[in-house]
Amino acid sequence: MDFALDTTTEELRERLLTFLHEKVYPAEPVFSEQLEAADDRWAWSRVPVLHELRAQAREQGLWNLFLPGEEGGGLTNLQYAPLAEITGRSRLAPPALNCSAPDTGNMEVLSMFGTEKQRKEWLEPLLAGEIRSSFAMTEPDVASSDATNIGTRIERDGDHYVVNGRKWWITGAMNPDAAIFIVMGKTDPSADRHRQQSMILVPRDTPGVEINRGMTVFGYDDADHGGHAEMTFTDVRVPAENLIGGEGDGFAIAQARLGPGRIHHCMRSIGVAERAIELMCDRAAERVAFGKPIADQGVVRDWIAEARVRVEQLRLLVLKTAWLMDTVGNKGAHTEIQAIKIATPRTVEWILDKAIQVHGAGGLSQDSPLAGLFAGIRTLRFADGPDEVHKNALAKAELKRQQGRGTH
Amino acid sequence: MDFALDTTTEELRERLLTFLHEKVYPAEPVFSEQLEAADDRWAWSRVPVLHELRAQAREQGLWNLFLPGEEGGGLTNLQYAPLAEITGRSRLAPPALNCSAPDTGNMEVLSMFGTEKQRKEWLEPLLAGEIRSSFAMTEPDVASSDATNIGTRIERDGDHYVVNGRKWWITGAMNPDAAIFIVMGKTDPSADRHRQQSMILVPRDTPGVEINRGMTVFGYDDADHGGHAEMTFTDVRVPAENLIGGEGDGFAIAQARLGPGRIHHCMRSIGVAERAIELMCDRAAERVAFGKPIADQGVVRDWIAEARVRVEQLRLLVLKTAWLMDTVGNKGAHTEIQAIKIATPRTVEWILDKAIQVHGAGGLSQDSPLAGLFAGIRTLRFADGPDEVHKNALAKAELKRQQGRGTH
Amino acid sequence: MDFALDTTTEELRERLLTFLHEKVYPAEPVFSEQLEAADDRWAWSRVPVLHELRAQAREQGLWNLFLPGEEGGGLTNLQYAPLAEITGRSRLAPPALNCSAPDTGNMEVLSMFGTEKQRKEWLEPLLAGEIRSSFAMTEPDVASSDATNIGTRIERDGDHYVVNGRKWWITGAMNPDAAIFIVMGKTDPSADRHRQQSMILVPRDTPGVEINRGMTVFGYDDADHGGHAEMTFTDVRVPAENLIGGEGDGFAIAQARLGPGRIHHCMRSIGVAERAIELMCDRAAERVAFGKPIADQGVVRDWIAEARVRVEQLRLLVLKTAWLMDTVGNKGAHTEIQAIKIATPRTVEWILDKAIQVHGAGGLSQDSPLAGLFAGIRTLRFADGPDEVHKNALAKAELKRQQGRGTH
Amino acid sequence: MDFALDTTTEELRERLLTFLHEKVYPAEPVFSEQLEAADDRWAWSRVPVLHELRAQAREQGLWNLFLPGEEGGGLTNLQYAPLAEITGRSRLAPPALNCSAPDTGNMEVLSMFGTEKQRKEWLEPLLAGEIRSSFAMTEPDVASSDATNIGTRIERDGDHYVVNGRKWWITGAMNPDAAIFIVMGKTDPSADRHRQQSMILVPRDTPGVEINRGMTVFGYDDADHGGHAEMTFTDVRVPAENLIGGEGDGFAIAQARLGPGRIHHCMRSIGVAERAIELMCDRAAERVAFGKPIADQGVVRDWIAEARVRVEQLRLLVLKTAWLMDTVGNKGAHTEIQAIKIATPRTVEWILDKAIQVHGAGGLSQDSPLAGLFAGIRTLRFADGPDEVHKNALAKAELKRQQGRGTH
Repeated sequence: MDFALDTTTEELRERLLTFLHEKVYPAEPVFSEQLEAADDRWAWSRVPVLHELRAQAREQGLWNLFLPGEEGGGLTNLQYAPLAEITGRSRLAPPALNCSAPDTGNMEVLSMFGTEKQRKEWLEPLLAGEIRSSFAMTEPDVASSDATNIGTRIERDGDHYVVNGRKWWITGAMNPDAAIFIVMGKTDPSADRHRQQSMILVPRDTPGVEINRGMTVFGYDDADHGGHAEMTFTDVRVPAENLIGGEGDGFAIAQARLGPGRIHHCMRSIGVAERAIELMCDRAAERVAFGKPIADQGVVRDWIAEARVRVEQLRLLVLKTAWLMDTVGNKGAHTEIQAIKIATPRTVEWILDKAIQVHGAGGLSQDSPLAGLFAGIRTLRFADGPDEVHKNALAKAELKRQQGRGTH
Repeated sequence: MDFALDTTTEELRERLLTFLHEKVYPAEPVFSEQLEAADDRWAWSRVPVLHELRAQAREQGLWNLFLPGEEGGGLTNLQYAPLAEITGRSRLAPPALNCSAPDTGNMEVLSMFGTEKQRKEWLEPLLAGEIRSSFAMTEPDVASSDATNIGTRIERDGDHYVVNGRKWWITGAMNPDAAIFIVMGKTDPSADRHRQQSMILVPRDTPGVEINRGMTVFGYDDADHGGHAEMTFTDVRVPAENLIGGEGDGFAIAQARLGPGRIHHCMRSIGVAERAIELMCDRAAERVAFGKPIADQGVVRDWIAEARVRVEQLRLLVLKTAWLMDTVGNKGAHTEIQAIKIATPRTVEWILDKAIQVHGAGGLSQDSPLAGLFAGIRTLRFADGPDEVHKNALAKAELKRQQGRGTH
Repeated sequence: MDFALDTTTEELRERLLTFLHEKVYPAEPVFSEQLEAADDRWAWSRVPVLHELRAQAREQGLWNLFLPGEEGGGLTNLQYAPLAEITGRSRLAPPALNCSAPDTGNMEVLSMFGTEKQRKEWLEPLLAGEIRSSFAMTEPDVASSDATNIGTRIERDGDHYVVNGRKWWITGAMNPDAAIFIVMGKTDPSADRHRQQSMILVPRDTPGVEINRGMTVFGYDDADHGGHAEMTFTDVRVPAENLIGGEGDGFAIAQARLGPGRIHHCMRSIGVAERAIELMCDRAAERVAFGKPIADQGVVRDWIAEARVRVEQLRLLVLKTAWLMDTVGNKGAHTEIQAIKIATPRTVEWILDKAIQVHGAGGLSQDSPLAGLFAGIRTLRFADGPDEVHKNALAKAELKRQQGRGTH
Repeated sequence: MDFALDTTTEELRERLLTFLHEKVYPAEPVFSEQLEAADDRWAWSRVPVLHELRAQAREQGLWNLFLPGEEGGGLTNLQYAPLAEITGRSRLAPPALNCSAPDTGNMEVLSMFGTEKQRKEWLEPLLAGEIRSSFAMTEPDVASSDATNIGTRIERDGDHYVVNGRKWWITGAMNPDAAIFIVMGKTDPSADRHRQQSMILVPRDTPGVEINRGMTVFGYDDADHGGHAEMTFTDVRVPAENLIGGEGDGFAIAQARLGPGRIHHCMRSIGVAERAIELMCDRAAERVAFGKPIADQGVVRDWIAEARVRVEQLRLLVLKTAWLMDTVGNKGAHTEIQAIKIATPRTVEWILDKAIQVHGAGGLSQDSPLAGLFAGIRTLRFADGPDEVHKNALAKAELKRQQGRGTH
């Protein structure tokens, strides 16, 4: 057992922190201004300063770090995790490094399951940062934490598949540069529970694809990330070769996509928590009330201590999960993947709430990043199914494990 | 001891509920549309459907119920409280009944402390619903929970006072119809701690009054309530007769304004909690996951039970506080007023969080009122000073009381 | 609505507080010593100082206050509740006033449902404080929150009933003066769900009644209350006239016993909470750490404020429940009775935990009453079924109520 | 970074688990019986079955594993931690392996700071398990979390030191075999804050040493661990050579003792948590209520999932702390040592509370180990200073760290 980062990771961490301090942070206000002034406020990927950042990130070898193997950074999950944490500190960092969701997950899917043609057509421009993508899984009418609930149909018709369905919370899809959608739907509703679903590539400009509106989260539309679209697919016809894997592989691909996605999300969220602690401490040290800095008040101290104690425990569990994925695979890490899904949002949400409280009402306003971060983290208690579903499953596994326990 | 409402209150409650169901709820979407289509989206008081509602409310004797005495509904705090709870169920109800903050508090101040001239000029049009008002107390640069921190100056200059200062979170001030501001500032920084402050009436169109921007809460700007302005007063000159009460009376007036304001806020918040419970139960009953309504899941049941148990206790404490104010005055009810300030936001916030969780991600979006309600309630943990300041004071009072306790 | 106590209650409150201060508190250490020195440490009812207290309580008209009607204090539930709270401050107060559980509930049962003969034989000596009693309902082998689970059999055999079964947590039964047991068992397992059970009077000295052992709570055996016995009934034969009510009435009688019992328990628990707050404040004021009294530390202040805010809300809910029972009956107060069962133990437990923390390790030891009080309150989360069962039922009722809600 | 245990640890873990299952668990009831039947119920170290266990542990090389270096198991903190966790599962395991507190800490002190003579006289018999020891630091009259508060005096008088003072919560001291006490006192109250204190060896039989009574924790006197004594030292005269280290070294030695002690305590507590989870799952699987095992109830599932998620995070933080102590020393691990002191008791206490709740009232009684475990864990929120003191210090350190943070 060894808790030290390896030298590759340490070295990349240093370079990444430098890049954030020297390039990303200064670019944040510029990005906001340029996006505000743009013709299409959803088209964040066209903002000039972002293009400059991306060029610099590529030069410095900080590009596509999330992707294992030769196409990406060649890092393990455990090596990438501490880097993902750092990217969580700025909303601009993940796009600058071509490491932003949902593109990361989509590239992983294409990298693992794509055909030669699919990779050439979609993975290459994604890796190059030339286009964006979305992942169309969640549906408004059903509890999508239960995959068998999916209502979207993908039906074979000669050399084509025809897609019909309604999706929402499709992150990034409001951005006109989101050129390709990975759509989850049922090809065979009569098959086994986990063999009914398939995934298919649907180009944005296919007739029948309609973007209806952007969903808001606590009043935010997240335009700087391409929003969260509600959209409909009406008799959308794509070539049969657009299917990813075979018919019925959808559930398995979704599972494969999930593991690294969770790690990334959780580590970025821990970056958010660290930023919140920084802001909380800075404010507590500087703000005077009733004659002394509020950093001297017992209740504020209690929050700061709690925040540190909680985030340290959380980070270790996420890192261990990354290590398990690297060593025993996603399946072997299943319980831990669920555990970090449960533990992360509520821990980070608690810290953000206290950081906001230390800031006074300004912490809820446009003057502070905290309110927006709170909104973002709050959605994680729903993402890929609400916490309660995951807790239920984890408990079931624990009960089973305990029943089978021997003496060791 | 008797927990039954009196017949006046019961009768008004019935009429008010009928009015909400028959008039207010149906008008909600109309109001939103008309405001959206208006020239000035902050000018909510000009929306046609609201004018219709107001005319109907007046006809039915549901107008200015909040104000004791002949000018208003003639109700005690205890009688008005259950009505205020009902108005909390719809954002449109308080304005429809001319019972919305901060106008209510301002009318109370003018009613109690205004000169004949001030009442004629400002109270009458406010009671008639012809103009709106704001209360300019909070300042960005200081912890305003400590009244001695106020930086705004009100200086005598011949027959005038000159006001200089910066304020923020001035609710309603973005609305061009907010014709009059009650401004808190220091007339004598060298006086006793609680005699330094005064309040003065500043008409919106006075030279030197500048509205800088609307603050957001999470991503909401609350345009339908006139927003929350940041504003500056630069050499703003008003006649000396605009002072409310005498020089140095500001703190005492603010305290007098606070008591009923708290009761109103808290009761409206309990209305919010009840609405959240309704929405949670409806959703739980109708939403099916893993083969059964989520109302059958133990964890959801736990939330519903907790919500009911918590809100029942909270309501009784608010009602008792109203009764104390009626029987022993604001001062005698001081500890209870603090207690409800502490207990209300966190209780209602907890219920809203669970109601949102039962709704899935849609609960965070524009499709549900819950997200906006959460944002509104969250601000109450700062309003009139953060919870922590009130807890500290309440504990101090408890410690003192315990030290002096005799045998009874 | 009126939150003032009536004059009867106020006057009794004063007398009761005087009695506690002048008589009960000084007798506490004497009682402990005398019990310690006694031949049978379970025979608390024989302790000399208790007999003196009882004589004084009778003289002063503070005897059997719990019982409505002529046989008792003639008080309503709402009138008795604030008195019960006061008795919660000292473990010696309820026995001194002949108002201690489970005798109170048993006397209520006999008063409401007993025959002339039963009342003469058992109620009279109980009211006179000459004997003690126990209520034998809970069983070790089944979840007794589900009344249909009861395994004890009461079978008719000619002019007699024969009782067979095993019970535990039979409070008071270790005391040799507990002369009579009210035993719950099944007379007809094939009857309707709530008509299977009956209650029967079993004198302690009946052959086949065996007291097996005293259960401990944490490390306490509660000898000063007669402990909590595990006991067996083996072919215990009693006259048929010992049945309370008719065959099949057991469930209904248990329900009738429950309402007032809950109110008493909850109010006494609130007395415990108030005592804990007193002890916490005293200790905080007197204990110095790092150069100042810990009463000046923010976290301790937070606890004190929370304790006050929580207990005020709780008390009002219990009082309202008492009022409902008086005005609309136990059935109409059903939801509130459940709500106080849920809210009371966890609230008081929280306050005790913080009071202990303020006391340091001494708070856990024999030097402080807090540890014992914690143990006692902790058991309430199980008494008459665990919280979780009650929450589930309350939520079900709420869901049903919401589904049927009209516009008012 | 690597989360796998090394082979030494893995191998010892296997042997230890086997030893527990084959030897320790079966001996538990025997130990209780033999102790019950003994002349002196505090003399747990004389119980025959324990002597057998010890002989077997020695044979199997499972003796003194806690102690680094040649005298002990030669393990690092990180290697010993997972073994300490296992010993937490049975109250009998630590004494069987000669790894029970406070002897472990005392042996460490003697091993690190003892003179040749001290080691020969006291360390050797301790390592051999021939005698027991106590650590006399905590005092009743002062907040001993502040070391400068210590009131006990150690005064030089020629070739001797004279000790005067009062101590309490001296674990193990009720056992007549506790032959030696390490006593903390002040040699020079006028020295620098952390140079006033010294430690000295006081044999039990020295005139002036008096054991006053055993403290209870929630009614338990912990006789099977030698209890927690209150004791007085009155003009106790010991040779000057009994001083450990030099005058003024007391604080530094206490700090050195603290690090490993915390790790051991925390890991044993995690063992307690794991045992509680086992008991909770077993009971949930077997207990039927309302027609199904309570393991199928959502709320119970929620507790089980929470327990697993919390304990996994906690364990990793404790292991990381052990690793830090091994790699950068106690000082470098200071924040983490504080963090685990804060995080452990409340986490394990929460799990125990839920496990008890799943067991029903029996979980609070002598029929279950849970109630006693709860009592033991509860004391950890006071041990070496209450949580609040540690949180305050940790927050202060965090605030300082944040103020000095650079870009990395």
